[in-house]
Amino acid sequence: METNSIQTKPETVAVITPEILLEHWQGHRALTRRVIEAFPEDRFYDFSIGGMRTFAQLAMEIIGISAPGIRGIAFGDWTFTEPTLDHSTPAPATKAEVLQLWDVVTDYINLLWPQIQPQRFHEKEAAFGMYENTIYNTILYMIDNEIHHRAQGYVYLRALGVEPPAFWDR
Amino acid sequence: METNSIQTKPETVAVITPEILLEHWQGHRALTRRVIEAFPEDRFYDFSIGGMRTFAQLAMEIIGISAPGIRGIAFGDWTFTEPTLDHSTPAPATKAEVLQLWDVVTDYINLLWPQIQPQRFHEKEAAFGMYENTIYNTILYMIDNEIHHRAQGYVYLRALGVEPPAFWDR
Repeated sequence: METNSIQTKPETVAVITPEILLEHWQGHRALTRRVIEAFPEDRFYDFSIGGMRTFAQLAMEIIGISAPGIRGIAFGDWTFTEPTLDHSTPAPATKAEVLQLWDVVTDYINLLWPQIQPQRFHEKEAAFGMYENTIYNTILYMIDNEIHHRAQGYVYLRALGVEPPAFWDR
Repeated sequence: METNSIQTKPETVAVITPEILLEHWQGHRALTRRVIEAFPEDRFYDFSIGGMRTFAQLAMEIIGISAPGIRGIAFGDWTFTEPTLDHSTPAPATKAEVLQLWDVVTDYINLLWPQIQPQRFHEKEAAFGMYENTIYNTILYMIDNEIHHRAQGYVYLRALGVEPPAFWDR
């Protein structure tokens, strides 16, 4: 077995480093932002299929998980007191305001990410005080949840006759 | 900074190891399998929204990417000669047969995964002869693509009045 900079022991190969995981997450966030932008203003707030939530509600869920999420991940404190970025906050009245919140969260993630201590990723903790998991799994779950709900947005856009942004473009 | 088994140098923290990434992928595959199972037999083949593909076609895309994909990832050979597992293979006539192919690919991934050399994950290569990327990014892309298309299946199921499997259950 060859040794190189990303391998130390075979059982601890760093496939994904913190830097890669942040880039991956922010790449997905940039795409989700473009999906929000692609929605017609009114349909963002009222369109749904099969009784599911509107994309405004889904975007607010992602905002409301990501902001308290990165704080909990970085510092182990899962309380959160910023009302506009909380999980159950209703969407502001315009897409432009939602996008502003989105960008605040993007910056907040970039600010807190380098403060995550290396050993933290493999610690077990109840995320949001409820979901016992390793920190890396909590991060992956947040990204997966965003991909999952964003894909609902893709179907909504297609049903509305709007071409969604390219999935591969991060 | 604390040193432990998953950290060697700060810049090479192993957030995700090969073992974790395989478990993550197979957890998603198990969930996608349950989404296939949840479809009524006929709607699996004919239901669609907004001109998008049926879930049978999407399931076959995932099969047809994953099988040649893991082979390319492991060995750098992106040709593939197994016709039933190829990207452009039409779906077999029954869901049961699709699920059989699904399980073959699951086993194939488990078989080849331990044969991926550690340094391989950070090599750059044109996946499927076309998409220049690091191997880890190609793997993440395949997983993301599956989450994305599976979420379409969730919307299809909701539109059909069928309760989809729980997203958090891997």
